[in-house]
Amino acid sequence: MPDKDERKVTPRSQDFAAWYNDIVLRAELADYSPVRGCIVFRPDGFAIWESLRDELDRRIKRTGARNAYFPLFIPQSFLRKEAQHVEGFAPEVAAVTHGGGQELEEPLIVRPTSETIIHHMFGQWIHSYRDLPLMVNQWCNVVRWEMRTRMFLRTTEFLWQEGHTAHATSEEAQRETLTILELYKSFVEDFLAIPLVVGRKSAAERFPGAEETYAIEGLMGDGRALQCGTSHFLGQNFAKAFEIKYLDEQNQLQYAWQTSWGVSTRLLGAIIMVHGDDQGLRLPPTVAATQVVIVPIARKPEEAASVLAAAKQVCESLESAGIRVRLDSRDGLSPGFKFNDWEMRGVPLRIEIGPRDVAAGQVVFARRDLKGPAAKSTAPAAEAAPRASVLLGEIKQSLYQQALAWMQRETREFQTYPELKKQMEGEGGGGFASVFWCGSPDCETRIREETRATCRAIPFNQSHPAGTCIVCGEPASERAFFAKSY
Amino acid sequence: MPDKDERKVTPRSQDFAAWYNDIVLRAELADYSPVRGCIVFRPDGFAIWESLRDELDRRIKRTGARNAYFPLFIPQSFLRKEAQHVEGFAPEVAAVTHGGGQELEEPLIVRPTSETIIHHMFGQWIHSYRDLPLMVNQWCNVVRWEMRTRMFLRTTEFLWQEGHTAHATSEEAQRETLTILELYKSFVEDFLAIPLVVGRKSAAERFPGAEETYAIEGLMGDGRALQCGTSHFLGQNFAKAFEIKYLDEQNQLQYAWQTSWGVSTRLLGAIIMVHGDDQGLRLPPTVAATQVVIVPIARKPEEAASVLAAAKQVCESLESAGIRVRLDSRDGLSPGFKFNDWEMRGVPLRIEIGPRDVAAGQVVFARRDLKGPAAKSTAPAAEAAPRASVLLGEIKQSLYQQALAWMQRETREFQTYPELKKQMEGEGGGGFASVFWCGSPDCETRIREETRATCRAIPFNQSHPAGTCIVCGEPASERAFFAKSY
Repeated sequence: MPDKDERKVTPRSQDFAAWYNDIVLRAELADYSPVRGCIVFRPDGFAIWESLRDELDRRIKRTGARNAYFPLFIPQSFLRKEAQHVEGFAPEVAAVTHGGGQELEEPLIVRPTSETIIHHMFGQWIHSYRDLPLMVNQWCNVVRWEMRTRMFLRTTEFLWQEGHTAHATSEEAQRETLTILELYKSFVEDFLAIPLVVGRKSAAERFPGAEETYAIEGLMGDGRALQCGTSHFLGQNFAKAFEIKYLDEQNQLQYAWQTSWGVSTRLLGAIIMVHGDDQGLRLPPTVAATQVVIVPIARKPEEAASVLAAAKQVCESLESAGIRVRLDSRDGLSPGFKFNDWEMRGVPLRIEIGPRDVAAGQVVFARRDLKGPAAKSTAPAAEAAPRASVLLGEIKQSLYQQALAWMQRETREFQTYPELKKQMEGEGGGGFASVFWCGSPDCETRIREETRATCRAIPFNQSHPAGTCIVCGEPASERAFFAKSY
Repeated sequence: MPDKDERKVTPRSQDFAAWYNDIVLRAELADYSPVRGCIVFRPDGFAIWESLRDELDRRIKRTGARNAYFPLFIPQSFLRKEAQHVEGFAPEVAAVTHGGGQELEEPLIVRPTSETIIHHMFGQWIHSYRDLPLMVNQWCNVVRWEMRTRMFLRTTEFLWQEGHTAHATSEEAQRETLTILELYKSFVEDFLAIPLVVGRKSAAERFPGAEETYAIEGLMGDGRALQCGTSHFLGQNFAKAFEIKYLDEQNQLQYAWQTSWGVSTRLLGAIIMVHGDDQGLRLPPTVAATQVVIVPIARKPEEAASVLAAAKQVCESLESAGIRVRLDSRDGLSPGFKFNDWEMRGVPLRIEIGPRDVAAGQVVFARRDLKGPAAKSTAPAAEAAPRASVLLGEIKQSLYQQALAWMQRETREFQTYPELKKQMEGEGGGGFASVFWCGSPDCETRIREETRATCRAIPFNQSHPAGTCIVCGEPASERAFFAKSY
């Protein structure tokens, strides 16, 4: 059996894109599939999605939304009912033209998002103000044809949740949009340890058919931004297209006000690109399929039995404490190989137990989030479980703090356009640029075309004196965050 | 607001099919969709699926299988690699011919089941006996083109789990097939309170590409059988088609041995058709979104406050005990209307609280599984929660016992073919017929063509003297269960 680091990944500092692909493949998170643009989520990757999904599902249900499931297929004519919506999605749809051996009269679109079919059903279900608010959420697969695949970030098929709500008033719908945005923010920050910039999108970056789109944006390890979730205020656009009307308390017929919101499996990409390092993946303990790995270290055959027995005991105590623990008792592999392997796979905490530890009745902890001596500590074997719980909590905090420090360091305010341009030059990221922008699409387009940075978010509640647009010099009341993005 | 039973369902005893559709629509479990053959799972229906799925998922994971996710689309050529498989599925597939505005070189099939694409990936991942067993499970949507839709039972798109495993030996794969069959049986019997007949399928009823198919079969309230789950021993058929080879411990290249197994959203249909009665749905407490509904009864305005306060207190005590409880404090609806509404929706247990109950410090329980005085009992309000827990357990047992008594009554042994034929005549079901069958496809075909009954299962471990085939009179060692089925 191999005892060298065959699975070592390209260092992140050397080639970010190669590093990313290496992690996805070697940590067995996902694999390429024989279907262009589609990937396979392997068990170690899917387990991250399951942890994330279950927690987010609990949080969404607490807001009053309930899960439902709508058809995968959407009649082509539905997509055309909202003008901006069809313009946004038509170029990237997959169409079913044959079913049961027959050519279909009307092609069916494989859902790229479900506003149209869900709103059609809302139209059947909503009659009176008593039927409102109607709040549903759906976990499903969606398909958007992609020419260039990037594991988790850009794939033809991906998994997501999409929430869809209808309300009696504009205010209530807008409140819902922001409630979910805040829910996404606290979920991604607390549970995935990813710090965010939050705000509204520019008109150019809006969801096709929305009045307003809000987003949470994270900063990846290469200085590029990644949109991690969006929440849309749809106004009455879809209600009018799909005739979603209700009788209000005064018996007047009104169109409903709507929202939609979603996060997807691209969050797996965010976890990798925010937390990973040269050695590989670093997983927040909340989503790690294995939170703690125990490596018994016996150099002589006569030590093996007592070391393994001690390791098993520690393993059981952690299991009893509800920790997802794994004992790596594989034969024929050196401890060093195992250390590297589990580090590459992102396991947050390692426990080492050797003959001297058994004699001393202790275990050695090694944290994945720190390097050198700071990563190591010892504890009495009897206290391994409570100690591991404390360390797992600290590791999550520490991953968040490291990512926050990085985002803060890579967030810059610029006063002049040449400064902005210079920062965005080159192949790498460039971080977030906070600049005054007058709001005109022309200035936004110029920034995009000349620097490849797009408007990621316009933060809320800006409390600073007004300035002048970094492009045209006209008065500007708000700063916007621009960045190159995935 | 309406105070009469607008939502009453067609009595089951009057028209089983109409009754079934009424329940699905009026209990808001599902709705028709604008896409032919596809239905919408509404929140009250989807919640049943979620409870069922979460419990089954836990049980499957305990066997060592892990969840993964494979592409929705399958290259058409893959389906053709296993001869029986393509023959079985080709007529009912949906084909994507266009993506991203272009015609595809090779059509993509929307998965009707995932053996082919999963086995292709297994071929990439399996190299050595150390990679075995490989056990994955996938929760997903699948598409099989249907001309005649029946809510939950027969829809173009449905949801399911499909497990796929690869093993080093035939024995191990066969053991896995039966382990899962037993898991399905205990899950459906314990959790869904549905008694089953279990056994192997005849060759004619086998999964296309399998060496042996096993099934769990339930008997619906109209005397028809419903296949509730299947487990397939695939032998080496797919391993040979997809080149799944491994080096054994003697360094010899071997084909792997495989299984696949699944249950689907048709289990929701089984729950309705096994437990429902003239009044509507009856849900096992395990899967009921609302396990207990509390109806406050105040006929005079001056009683309302104290009754509602008492109801709220009871509601909180049940919530604290982890019971899924709902307080129906809707204005303008009579208690009678509410009773009927929740009975129709299948809530297992109702608590009534009126002014006299408040004065006596008690609550009245009404069980959905029983009728008349036997359904009613009282308990001190302070003991409402523990009492409700006990009753919910009893209700599940009682639903199972009622269904078991029905299945036993509707299971008959026949010695002569005319008896069998007579039993299966007419529009209704006919129950299970246990008959000696020689095993020849000719006799099976004759039974199917003349009685519309098919071979549902050949039970294991039959301990009776051999007999003679009910059709041809040749010696027959086994009894088979025939029934008309969904």
